[in-house]
Amino acid sequence: MTEPPVDANDIAALERVADGQPSALIVDAALVAAAHDAVAEGNEETVRAFIAPLHAADLADLIQELDRADRRAVVPMISRDLLPDVLAELDETVRDEVIEALGPQETAAVVADMDIDDALHVIADLDEDDQQRLLDAIPEPDRVLIEEGLSYPEFSAGRLMQRQVVALPEFWTVGDTIDYLRATAETNPEALPTLFYDLYVVDPAHRLLGGMPLSRLLTARRSVALAELMQTDIKRIPVTMEQREVAFLFRQRDLTSAPVVAESGRLVGVITIDDVVDVMEEEHEEEVMHLGGVRTDDLYRDTVATARARFTWLFINLITAIIASLVIGLFDATIEQMVALAVLMPIVASMGGNAGTQTLTVAVRALATNELTAANAARVLGKEILVGTINGLSFAVVTGFVAWVWFGHLPLAVIIGLAMIINLISAGLFGALIPIVLDRLGVDPAVASSVLLTTVTDVVGFFAFLGLATWLLL
Amino acid sequence: MTEPPVDANDIAALERVADGQPSALIVDAALVAAAHDAVAEGNEETVRAFIAPLHAADLADLIQELDRADRRAVVPMISRDLLPDVLAELDETVRDEVIEALGPQETAAVVADMDIDDALHVIADLDEDDQQRLLDAIPEPDRVLIEEGLSYPEFSAGRLMQRQVVALPEFWTVGDTIDYLRATAETNPEALPTLFYDLYVVDPAHRLLGGMPLSRLLTARRSVALAELMQTDIKRIPVTMEQREVAFLFRQRDLTSAPVVAESGRLVGVITIDDVVDVMEEEHEEEVMHLGGVRTDDLYRDTVATARARFTWLFINLITAIIASLVIGLFDATIEQMVALAVLMPIVASMGGNAGTQTLTVAVRALATNELTAANAARVLGKEILVGTINGLSFAVVTGFVAWVWFGHLPLAVIIGLAMIINLISAGLFGALIPIVLDRLGVDPAVASSVLLTTVTDVVGFFAFLGLATWLLL
Repeated sequence: MTEPPVDANDIAALERVADGQPSALIVDAALVAAAHDAVAEGNEETVRAFIAPLHAADLADLIQELDRADRRAVVPMISRDLLPDVLAELDETVRDEVIEALGPQETAAVVADMDIDDALHVIADLDEDDQQRLLDAIPEPDRVLIEEGLSYPEFSAGRLMQRQVVALPEFWTVGDTIDYLRATAETNPEALPTLFYDLYVVDPAHRLLGGMPLSRLLTARRSVALAELMQTDIKRIPVTMEQREVAFLFRQRDLTSAPVVAESGRLVGVITIDDVVDVMEEEHEEEVMHLGGVRTDDLYRDTVATARARFTWLFINLITAIIASLVIGLFDATIEQMVALAVLMPIVASMGGNAGTQTLTVAVRALATNELTAANAARVLGKEILVGTINGLSFAVVTGFVAWVWFGHLPLAVIIGLAMIINLISAGLFGALIPIVLDRLGVDPAVASSVLLTTVTDVVGFFAFLGLATWLLL
Repeated sequence: MTEPPVDANDIAALERVADGQPSALIVDAALVAAAHDAVAEGNEETVRAFIAPLHAADLADLIQELDRADRRAVVPMISRDLLPDVLAELDETVRDEVIEALGPQETAAVVADMDIDDALHVIADLDEDDQQRLLDAIPEPDRVLIEEGLSYPEFSAGRLMQRQVVALPEFWTVGDTIDYLRATAETNPEALPTLFYDLYVVDPAHRLLGGMPLSRLLTARRSVALAELMQTDIKRIPVTMEQREVAFLFRQRDLTSAPVVAESGRLVGVITIDDVVDVMEEEHEEEVMHLGGVRTDDLYRDTVATARARFTWLFINLITAIIASLVIGLFDATIEQMVALAVLMPIVASMGGNAGTQTLTVAVRALATNELTAANAARVLGKEILVGTINGLSFAVVTGFVAWVWFGHLPLAVIIGLAMIINLISAGLFGALIPIVLDRLGVDPAVASSVLLTTVTDVVGFFAFLGLATWLLL
């Protein structure tokens, strides 16, 4: 075999791939550009030389940063060993593209080689026909496990957990346990998880009695029974618990792994922190994206799909804007007499919107972290109204002064000041109230709060300012 | 001793505290209300009965949800064993209050009982005088470790790591290792971390050679040497690496713990996933809060401090709003002739603001997750301009139609349509460009992007709409 023609740039990029460099970011612009050039030149050897040293997660990142055509060219060159892990790491939209490029046969083979929990995750994201086709192609023991996993509700602990657990009887000693683990690793390594942090102790009906971290086992004498060593107050996760509650528990208790139990108390699986970290990332992504009025898979969607997905949100905002315009339209006669009102009116509305967004952000965050509950809702509301009053007074003075200097019209300055106070108080009130009420109604406050708030701050802002002007000036 | 008078409500609240209930949330409204009532009645026994069964993290939550007066009353009742963990779990603002309530003597004693990494975290948040006073009160070996920790830059791996590591010579066997761990646990338990997941192998100069998870040690024969068993390709974290890069690495590689090395290759500590989860939460909190124009400790600040902290951001936004008003002021003669322009103009500006926020949210997120880099910046920009064009055209038709029906004035409908196209394209362009440029300049894009974007979409929106009207209608 001839040496692949790798040029100096490629080598620099590859060297950065080596461990020990100060930056955690391996897939940087230079690497992506070099990969793109290699693909464009159709030089398969160079492309393979690029991707060979990459970790699956980094390779997934590289594929995501390439454009569609490059992705399709690169997929067939990924080593078969890495494909299961790469597929597990990809963003859903890009994963669909890769699955299409692989074809149904190859995809089934790849999914069959994935860890059960990863396979479950990939299959759950497919539509039902594709799900069934993939499942049919997966051999027997794994297929049953995946189907069992799919039978748990979406976003539940059952979907998140790994099925392989080291569960031992309580009468075993530390010595028995170590001997068993050694023997099993030699004779039947498939029976053990590839990596585990805890041992669990079960009764003959496989009901969970307790557990212990491996470091506890390792620091005990051989003769000690597991029953003595185990911790019985470990946190048990009910298999139906929602994944966001699971994430809350892991954070709250600094857990690394936790056993999952069925209603009967039977140990059915274990959730490890790396899966919980993924859940935390998803929840975070959703919170930020929803607050900004976009869907979570926006970045990797094609242009038309992105435009269509964003249209809905913009359309709802258009209705808000039209309502605000209707309020302005009520006062067109006043504006006609004093055009300065038209010049100044966006200031009142905009300040209300910004102050309300501050409150809303704090409230949505605090709801997500369980820091805002029915217990302190009244206190938070009271505080926000007060903060709105204080800043309303401050900005009444500032904007009143600006209006007075600008237009030399003292009544106008007083009116904008009063409108500012009214709008900032209502911004504080509704900025806190809207997310709290939506949350109480079971609606995700990150999605719907901001458009409702803008409606309030625009309507109140324009109405207060133009209404006061009509009343006091005409 | 008489039985503490616990009433039925209290008992219900306490029962929910017991493990195994379906909800992860223990500190709910009922518990907080019951705790408040008990404090209000001055019934110390009842309060103690409440807080005794709580986990430190839950107790910290309870304290945060109480109001200031209640907090001060509860602090002296917290058991001395729990205080170190409670202090570590508290939000910074509330922690300052608790430290004040404890007084300097008691605080020093509590901090001395904390894990080194937690103590470091608490001390690092204090101002310099308090830091020195606390350090002086902490006994010798711990104080040196904490001072060493403080010598690493803020937000670096050195600040995050634990100092206690199990590091062993490469010629030891599995048997030697287990015997050593057992013996040390009995004779000198302080020399071992309370919980550990990995063993590290070092040379005589304490340079890191490799490592292994405990499950690997446990499944190997006693005679195997650590040199054979260890994995040498484990990820090493340089002690100066920034914590957000550490978090990225842990996520990317699904790590549970990772060794921290000095420049010489010496093993100096270990970072575990629970500390990284805290970093991820902090980064997330910052991203969301900064996008909303608030500081991260907003929820627990008192009213005046909150109002003052938010004032700055609102003031910057006021300048933006005034700039937009100046643009409107340029066209006051046009508005005077056709007041419908004043009625419709906020629609154009608001749609630009919302479309720009969508793009900005995606861009800020993608920058935070390293999914938007120099490699795909041009592609993302191109896509956003196209999305802006598509939705600009769509909303040109919709708003044009609305304006035509409303005012029966076809030229006005055409003008608002054209202005919409111009503003949505510029919203897409600047929504992506502003965060990318800020990031390149080393400015946190979550903080400054939105105010710059609003300036652009307001100015372009008003200028395009009123400018076109002046040009075409007069």
